[in-house]
Amino acid sequence: MEPAQEMIPQAGTLFGVGLGPGDPDLVTRRAARLIEGATVIAYPALAGGDSLARSIAADMIPPGAREILIDLPMTTDRAPAQAAYDAGAARIAEALEAGQDVVTLCEGDPFFYGSFMYLHARLAPRFRVQVVPGVTSVTACAALAGLPLAARNEAMTVLPGPLDDDALAARIRSADTLVLMKVGRHLPRLRALLAREGLLDAAVYVERASLPSQRVMPLAEAPNAAPYFSMILVTKGADPWL
Amino acid sequence: MEPAQEMIPQAGTLFGVGLGPGDPDLVTRRAARLIEGATVIAYPALAGGDSLARSIAADMIPPGAREILIDLPMTTDRAPAQAAYDAGAARIAEALEAGQDVVTLCEGDPFFYGSFMYLHARLAPRFRVQVVPGVTSVTACAALAGLPLAARNEAMTVLPGPLDDDALAARIRSADTLVLMKVGRHLPRLRALLAREGLLDAAVYVERASLPSQRVMPLAEAPNAAPYFSMILVTKGADPWL
Repeated sequence: MEPAQEMIPQAGTLFGVGLGPGDPDLVTRRAARLIEGATVIAYPALAGGDSLARSIAADMIPPGAREILIDLPMTTDRAPAQAAYDAGAARIAEALEAGQDVVTLCEGDPFFYGSFMYLHARLAPRFRVQVVPGVTSVTACAALAGLPLAARNEAMTVLPGPLDDDALAARIRSADTLVLMKVGRHLPRLRALLAREGLLDAAVYVERASLPSQRVMPLAEAPNAAPYFSMILVTKGADPWL
Repeated sequence: MEPAQEMIPQAGTLFGVGLGPGDPDLVTRRAARLIEGATVIAYPALAGGDSLARSIAADMIPPGAREILIDLPMTTDRAPAQAAYDAGAARIAEALEAGQDVVTLCEGDPFFYGSFMYLHARLAPRFRVQVVPGVTSVTACAALAGLPLAARNEAMTVLPGPLDDDALAARIRSADTLVLMKVGRHLPRLRALLAREGLLDAAVYVERASLPSQRVMPLAEAPNAAPYFSMILVTKGADPWL
């Protein structure tokens, strides 16, 4: 289903490479090989700060590789972020047009709540794109917590924490397994909501899964000030005793 | 959240190792290293047939490793499958009690619709367990289809195809992105259901993502006889044009 129109036949390929949740050991062999062989590497960073994506891949980046940093503004306004992706896509397009492949580093999986999809939307109509899937933070959190996510005919719903209570409540009720992403500053509200739904005892809080600073605990004991890379898992229907 | 009680202090560790969707290149570096260093390897196979998990890992298994095959019966009856997992868990427990680590091979991710959770349920109360998360078929299918799954505040729901129409319909309506797993023989019914919900044009069919025989096409053109390892992706709300 990749767009078939390739406007510049000699152009390079854009690789969107999933790096997994943070531990460099959770990078796939294909991702590692692509990074190790890259001549041009692109990645996002927040407001001139460090790039988590680059830090995961650091020991695989060849010394001579050219790096395209996509500097994302620290704001929820749409226009500045759009301008940053436009500028990043233009620099990547320049390399692709010159016949170079560009390896874009993506935390987790490129198509699962990742910034790569904004580059994909801008560049896929004109260039060949290959996406290398990665381990998501969802299964990394489940692995750390020792919690099976879904078995047999169970339904699993992934919900971003910033959604409002009404949007969350109905979906929480119809899910067997519930994954709340991007918890961050929404933690107190999400905890209250899950308590009202009678699910507090089934809820586990996981922070920075697979990184050295990872933490896991019952949601009831979680800190009010959660980092952005935190998650709540609720397994209601799990019946692994086949 | 792993059970703390370790009844046999000198026992080995049970590793549940996710292998990803099928392409050996989508195995993580950690999984590859664990398999390459294994002395005891366990994996499921259907009715004495080939094991997909073993075939993914084949080029990493050391020649001298002992292999524990968990022979699953080809039936939907619960008792014979339970007996097979009981027998497999007993053989694994024997190796663990002898102080050996056991590397269990799991297609995809061990805790995401995987058979490992049946071993985990039987063995985690008595033995140390480490789960290595893997790339799921969900993101592998999205990568192949060139379809971003979810961005920003979109909700994603994963539904097993064998669920009945009523259970599916309500959840289909409340999801932004919809993943129908285990499509197999349910394809004609699921296609009719999505057509009634006005979602047929947004639905993509993916078969055996990442394997050499992989296929992707609009659901409208998919064959009625789909294999078990097939999936339908529906992205309703995707708005990647940040």
